[in-house]
Amino acid sequence: MEFSSKLLENAVNEMSQLPGIGKRTALRLVLHMLRQPENQTFQLANALTKVRAEINFCKSCHNISDTVLCEICSNPKRNSELICVVEDIRDVMAVENTSSFKGLYHVLGGKISPMDGIGPQDLNITTLVEKVKTGEVKELIFAMSPTMEGDTTNFYIFRQIQDYNVATSTIARGVAAGNELEYTDEITLGRSIIDRVPFEASLKS
Amino acid sequence: MEFSSKLLENAVNEMSQLPGIGKRTALRLVLHMLRQPENQTFQLANALTKVRAEINFCKSCHNISDTVLCEICSNPKRNSELICVVEDIRDVMAVENTSSFKGLYHVLGGKISPMDGIGPQDLNITTLVEKVKTGEVKELIFAMSPTMEGDTTNFYIFRQIQDYNVATSTIARGVAAGNELEYTDEITLGRSIIDRVPFEASLKS
Ligand SMILES: [Zn+2]
Ligand SMILES: [Zn+2]
Repeated sequence: MEFSSKLLENAVNEMSQLPGIGKRTALRLVLHMLRQPENQTFQLANALTKVRAEINFCKSCHNISDTVLCEICSNPKRNSELICVVEDIRDVMAVENTSSFKGLYHVLGGKISPMDGIGPQDLNITTLVEKVKTGEVKELIFAMSPTMEGDTTNFYIFRQIQDYNVATSTIARGVAAGNELEYTDEITLGRSIIDRVPFEASLKS
Repeated sequence: MEFSSKLLENAVNEMSQLPGIGKRTALRLVLHMLRQPENQTFQLANALTKVRAEINFCKSCHNISDTVLCEICSNPKRNSELICVVEDIRDVMAVENTSSFKGLYHVLGGKISPMDGIGPQDLNITTLVEKVKTGEVKELIFAMSPTMEGDTTNFYIFRQIQDYNVATSTIARGVAAGNELEYTDEITLGRSIIDRVPFEASLKS
């Protein structure tokens, strides 16, 4: 792609580094910005700079939060004995949206995936095991996407905490095999939490 | 969509104002940025701010350019008697890419579209008519998209310049090279029959 302007080329190149945004789409988006009032682009740029510079993760559950402890962790009405283990903050949003869950979350920040070079040390697993060791957690609900990587991650965590006095369960396989959690409709997802099964039982299937 | 962070929500809302970027896609893109080194987001934000703040359009052809006159308009090897009228700078890039055209361009910046509230006064038509009035232009090639709006725009410009000594042409409409006839829309196909060329002439191209 030959550009008539270095400024334009630079903006298109930066935009096209985002996943799923090719050069053509990036050009379309930048040309759109050029047709809009300049304040709109400045606000977008400021919002991105600000979220990247000031991003904070909840000290306890690792969810994105503007406060040291997130709203869920600091809500006394939530059941702190029940922890739903998820991959990503989008999964927290998806489960919260079902209104079926009143416990807390633990955001791993990914799943074990040797193919992508992601090992247990890259995930928030140590802090989860420490929570279990305090004895204050009664049950862990594994709510990873039902993929091989999700299963591997569940099993890795299970082995770390199986000697402690904590129940484990996985969300019911109402979630279609191979589907990402965040794309599952809320009724199915809510149901799958209510119908959760003991983790050891899930290994037999 | 319920966010656990105002900073995140703000960034997602700004991103999702871009055309074709929904809330889910915007969230996916912002979460990607949060996983990358922060410099990457800062560079993107700076590139967008800079292109929007410092954008310049060629004084003559209205193409995006970092200089007062763009590289094409200031190239003495280009034929300034021949002007290709296009809607958008992407069309300049597309035609340049063919290496078939050695004249200059005139970028209208859109097409007449009453449905979208775009009238002739919103486009760079006056400067085009002024160029024709100087008598230095021998031919205008209308290279608008073959849509009703494109045709309307062509015709509007044609009426403004028809009393001056300038030839006008439109790019040939036809079946695209490599396309199956049966998948070509009927208007194009019909047009391609009306505009048929002597077989011997077609062999020369
Ligand atoms: Zn939290
Ligand atoms: Zn120019």
